[in-house]
Amino acid sequence: MSELLFRIIEMIRPLDREAMARAQARQNLLTKPQGSLGRLEELSVQLAGIQGRPLPQIRHKAIITMASDHGVVAEGVSAYPQEVTSQMVYNFLSGGAAVNVISRQVGARIIVVDMGVATELGANPRLLSRKVALGTQNMTLGPAMTEAQAVTALETGITVMMSEVAPGLDIVGTGDMGIGNTTASSAICAIMMARPVAEVTGRGTGLADRQLKHKIGVINRALAVNQPDPARPLDVLAKVGGFEIGGLVGVMLAAAAHRVPVVIDGFISGAAALIATSLAPKLRGFLVAAHVSAESGHKPLLNHLGLKPLLDLGMCLGEGTGAALGILLAETAARVLAEMATFTEAGVSERGDRAS
Amino acid sequence: MSELLFRIIEMIRPLDREAMARAQARQNLLTKPQGSLGRLEELSVQLAGIQGRPLPQIRHKAIITMASDHGVVAEGVSAYPQEVTSQMVYNFLSGGAAVNVISRQVGARIIVVDMGVATELGANPRLLSRKVALGTQNMTLGPAMTEAQAVTALETGITVMMSEVAPGLDIVGTGDMGIGNTTASSAICAIMMARPVAEVTGRGTGLADRQLKHKIGVINRALAVNQPDPARPLDVLAKVGGFEIGGLVGVMLAAAAHRVPVVIDGFISGAAALIATSLAPKLRGFLVAAHVSAESGHKPLLNHLGLKPLLDLGMCLGEGTGAALGILLAETAARVLAEMATFTEAGVSERGDRAS
Repeated sequence: MSELLFRIIEMIRPLDREAMARAQARQNLLTKPQGSLGRLEELSVQLAGIQGRPLPQIRHKAIITMASDHGVVAEGVSAYPQEVTSQMVYNFLSGGAAVNVISRQVGARIIVVDMGVATELGANPRLLSRKVALGTQNMTLGPAMTEAQAVTALETGITVMMSEVAPGLDIVGTGDMGIGNTTASSAICAIMMARPVAEVTGRGTGLADRQLKHKIGVINRALAVNQPDPARPLDVLAKVGGFEIGGLVGVMLAAAAHRVPVVIDGFISGAAALIATSLAPKLRGFLVAAHVSAESGHKPLLNHLGLKPLLDLGMCLGEGTGAALGILLAETAARVLAEMATFTEAGVSERGDRAS
Repeated sequence: MSELLFRIIEMIRPLDREAMARAQARQNLLTKPQGSLGRLEELSVQLAGIQGRPLPQIRHKAIITMASDHGVVAEGVSAYPQEVTSQMVYNFLSGGAAVNVISRQVGARIIVVDMGVATELGANPRLLSRKVALGTQNMTLGPAMTEAQAVTALETGITVMMSEVAPGLDIVGTGDMGIGNTTASSAICAIMMARPVAEVTGRGTGLADRQLKHKIGVINRALAVNQPDPARPLDVLAKVGGFEIGGLVGVMLAAAAHRVPVVIDGFISGAAALIATSLAPKLRGFLVAAHVSAESGHKPLLNHLGLKPLLDLGMCLGEGTGAALGILLAETAARVLAEMATFTEAGVSERGDRAS
């Protein structure tokens, strides 16, 4: 493990119990029956624990969307051709993708990172060019990347996140783009969760039954060829992962190290969270699951992580679209805690239980 | 039935199938796998059908929160004293309630209407004073209100809504405040859905087991005394309803008549929707269920209405808090449809299905 990675993991501290207790105490004074805002109340308390203050703030928001290509697409695992990865990166840069639209509504800035798109992209001031390589290798023939590349991907995610923290960041959402990356993510899930591939493999961008069966076969082959070691998350990332997945692992670790809440998107971000929480178990408390995706492996993945999603809207687009909606709700949670009047301030009577 | 009510119901037309088809056709051209935005795509198509245009707009937003008191609180059915209704109205007016905070985030204006709070409220330019009476009668002793009062409540809701439509309104959320109103709502549900009272009665603001049992007994007594006729929704509203519930029925009908989408909040708004859709079955297509409440009768109620909630956050506060979050998602749905680039515009390849 590299020194930067080691140092970032060491920086991750437990949630601030004092701040959480004070946030909960304030929730109980606000003009509503206790608990009547449900998950929003829980979320406000978690945000307090993460940020280490009784009144968490969600003002500066960012989505970090990492893109990369996957050698395994040569096996025909996606309904879309590989060039869609780079085309979608341009779409992100020109503001036309779903994640752009939702981020505008949310008021979140988007950081688009080329972690390893298979073609050279034109220079663009809004693109962070951080290619580890021109796409991963075909994991059915050997490791997707070297372990050194896996470390580079993580360190890249860490440095991208650190440079976003510097000017001020209250919350970050993770996003991904990469044709073939549900295949890599399913492989990671199967190994890290010790589940049969078929249980954690879904239709990605819309495979038919026969194509899904083929995809499962491809993943099983990749696992047989590589024999990734679930006790060594970097080995798993290197053998069957992707550069954008590694980058997101780094983003999550660095965010937690700097007490920034991480709203994870769908299945690919979830696979990154499996690797990241395995490297740093304390990370888990810093994660907010935005939604449960329609991708079939996502629900068992969230259960495995012990995360309860905020939304269930049948989405499965990635990019950070779910994370952006999760940030909206995190803002709601924080604002309710900070801005609502207490019973005393508003002159409202507390419960009398005259029914008893 | 009054002439205004009759005329408004007549004005409700079916959804615009042509606009819906065009919205769906555009969804299929946007740079994402078809259907990958799940419920947001469906919602955008519904909004198109309601507003009668292929690109629905959600810019002008309002929450209409109606408050009233309930004579049945004399039976000890709530954990909170009756004066909380008026106190919370003042809280709405000074901006300290949860619905105020969430509406500020959403950018929705709030219209607070006194439909029948049991005390005279001080004059306030932000309060619509539309008292039908100083609270309903105790429904265990006879009808909660006269049928004339029920009609007045509906007409009041209609006129409130019509005056909001005039300056421009793209979506409306319903909200309620009224100590005792889950009791009235459960009574309405039991009758309109032909279900045992115990199945549709919950803990309201937080009753213990014994208090819940008492509440169920009170509702059963009210139904036995009044014998409301489910084939006559106005009879049900008059005998076991409330003024704010009647007002919300009027809001829903007038909104649909003017092709304004109605985002319904929780259990009380749901009870109003039962009455409203019974008066005007075409209304159903104009309703968006924001969330499923923690109040136990709400899930069967939404099933009965055939509405699938967008959110499930364990909330049970009312006021319009859930509706405000539903409006956020409606805005997301409309913006995605309008603002995303198409495959052609963005130069992104469509699916190739090389896997087949």
